[in-house]
Amino acid sequence: MTNTLKELSTKSAKKIVLLVMDGVGGLPREPGGKTELETARTPNLDALAATAECGLHLPIGYGITPGSAPGHLALFGYDPLEFPIGRGVVAATGVAFPMKPGDVAARLNFATLDPAGAISDRRAGRIPTEKCGQLCELLKAVSIKGVEVSVRPVKDYRAVVVFRGKGLSDLVADTDPQIQGVKPLDPVATDPKGERTAQVTKDFVAQARKILASQTPANGVLMRGFAELPHIPSLQDLYQLSPVALAVYPDYKGIARLVGMEAIEDLADLEAQAKALPTVWESHDFFFIHHKYTDSKGEDGDFDEKVKEIEKVDAFLPRVLAMKPDLIIVTGDHSTPAVAKAHTSHPVPFLIAGEGVRSDGTQKFGERACARGLWGTISGQMLLRIALSYTGKLKKFGA
Amino acid sequence: MTNTLKELSTKSAKKIVLLVMDGVGGLPREPGGKTELETARTPNLDALAATAECGLHLPIGYGITPGSAPGHLALFGYDPLEFPIGRGVVAATGVAFPMKPGDVAARLNFATLDPAGAISDRRAGRIPTEKCGQLCELLKAVSIKGVEVSVRPVKDYRAVVVFRGKGLSDLVADTDPQIQGVKPLDPVATDPKGERTAQVTKDFVAQARKILASQTPANGVLMRGFAELPHIPSLQDLYQLSPVALAVYPDYKGIARLVGMEAIEDLADLEAQAKALPTVWESHDFFFIHHKYTDSKGEDGDFDEKVKEIEKVDAFLPRVLAMKPDLIIVTGDHSTPAVAKAHTSHPVPFLIAGEGVRSDGTQKFGERACARGLWGTISGQMLLRIALSYTGKLKKFGA
Repeated sequence: MTNTLKELSTKSAKKIVLLVMDGVGGLPREPGGKTELETARTPNLDALAATAECGLHLPIGYGITPGSAPGHLALFGYDPLEFPIGRGVVAATGVAFPMKPGDVAARLNFATLDPAGAISDRRAGRIPTEKCGQLCELLKAVSIKGVEVSVRPVKDYRAVVVFRGKGLSDLVADTDPQIQGVKPLDPVATDPKGERTAQVTKDFVAQARKILASQTPANGVLMRGFAELPHIPSLQDLYQLSPVALAVYPDYKGIARLVGMEAIEDLADLEAQAKALPTVWESHDFFFIHHKYTDSKGEDGDFDEKVKEIEKVDAFLPRVLAMKPDLIIVTGDHSTPAVAKAHTSHPVPFLIAGEGVRSDGTQKFGERACARGLWGTISGQMLLRIALSYTGKLKKFGA
Repeated sequence: MTNTLKELSTKSAKKIVLLVMDGVGGLPREPGGKTELETARTPNLDALAATAECGLHLPIGYGITPGSAPGHLALFGYDPLEFPIGRGVVAATGVAFPMKPGDVAARLNFATLDPAGAISDRRAGRIPTEKCGQLCELLKAVSIKGVEVSVRPVKDYRAVVVFRGKGLSDLVADTDPQIQGVKPLDPVATDPKGERTAQVTKDFVAQARKILASQTPANGVLMRGFAELPHIPSLQDLYQLSPVALAVYPDYKGIARLVGMEAIEDLADLEAQAKALPTVWESHDFFFIHHKYTDSKGEDGDFDEKVKEIEKVDAFLPRVLAMKPDLIIVTGDHSTPAVAKAHTSHPVPFLIAGEGVRSDGTQKFGERACARGLWGTISGQMLLRIALSYTGKLKKFGA
């Protein structure tokens, strides 16, 4: 189907906005009650829904709880099962490290090793991010012939390392044994292609150990999730789009870049996103706007705060509509009900408004209202192609 | 997807009930009328539906009328097209014969052969089951070197034979020509792997012919549907479940055992099932409860009696809910409308109640009401995975 879509794609001047409230799908606080979205006062979203085609979408599939990366891949029109994104890549793109094809990234945890070399604390007492940054600076001293080594802090004791050089591969097993009281595992190739990277990793770990020897409590490193960039065909290549991402969090800029989007830097909040939109409007035709805090508040278990975040997006919506996009999709990448304090598999409400839609009379943008919308419950991977076709970006199939 | 689900599966203490009214889906007696389920007084099911996510499911696919075995496989989360269950296996599991991997089962019909050896009656005058049992006893005298032969009566002129031994295979063609006036076909291997079984079958048929020579009218045997146990990964293996079946009919215990369920023996009716449930509650986390007679009455064409059977299950429901399952699915394995007197392809109503559901306001558990439920019409194979994810038995996919 991907090849067919690519063959059908055609350039058009029409502009599509994809507005994502991360983790917007929710659950009632008590049985029979309303979800966060149903509770929120959303006059602008409701007015838009009344002109729209609505439904619920499953980002990956029935019963599958999406991580953020696969949830977004689905919204960008990809099958997340076809393009698994490794932990190392998520970490690297998350801190906006510009990975290139052939680079190998891995998650790095600073850990505490006892005098015998066994792991006494896998998280080095959860050192603060600032300390993590200082340790990453120290690791700049690592030198491996023919390999460029980059280490970047992520959060707390977590960092990411990227190896760049010839003949590298992600076919290397974790060195993190995931338990304490034992030594870190030796890096082992899981395939002959991984031999060189295993050797590089061994060298890296040994040098890191020496550099960190006098540090307390973080005197060692554990590595997991070795990953290369997935070979994802870009949105330009597939659909001739000129896509741009307006996201605050690095993770989402990273995922957007993986599919070929330009990602605007230094956007602090919705206000900054609203101001940036006109500056990129003429030069692009696909606008991914991402709001993180609906998910964050859901993860915190804070129903009321999640409601407020949805209301903030509702207040922001007119500034997007003021640009007069030809078509706008409003949805989430997965559900993060406050009562669950986690991502869940529940289908996510969506609306498609603008060019060529059959409005279905949905009066309120919410889970139960959208379930009765025109589309019912469909795969999240279909939203983009519906938008493309409604805006003349997919030609007729067959004579 | 199966491998993905297996990787995501995780043990949780939550308990899931799958309550199946066999063949519950129905049709109106006259155009514009109500189905059996819509006619039935079901206050308990209706109250549960009001707290539930509802929909219709297609066990196998659009327009496909499910047999009992594939219909249940779908409810257990399997693709019935991926795991065909041969006629011989259905017959053997149907009489609770404990088949093992490598065993080959075949349906056996007692038939009448004329003096020249041609088939004069493929069903031996539909001899009663009792007589069939006596003939099966006589066939115990069959002796084949290296092969353990078991023959069990099924119903009327129908029996099942199971061969156990080394090097057997189900790649053998039927000996039943399906017409009268010709001799039974010689057992022929459809692949070199079936040679030994074809030889064993030839030997069995010849000995049976001698043993039955003086019998009237059943003096010969016809065999069809040679089948080995399908290699179905168990629910334990896939989802780390501890499943148990509470079914009255042997067929359903058999199908349940095929997917790794423990099956409780000697349950005479719903009362016995209700009493047995607390005895297995602590030791299991997945409970398949099966009621056969909704289907039987549908097959009989008895609309009113099917309504009564549904009402019996409604009265039984509170005893299940008293166990406080974390989640309950109520549905059927296919439709058996009384007006059709047979299984049909019509989608089957379902409700999912309990942990993490978004109740959709369905007021009556019935076909048309469920069609307007939150899920619309989906594949029956999705119900289990939705239940697993809502009860925390499937982890998040991707970072």
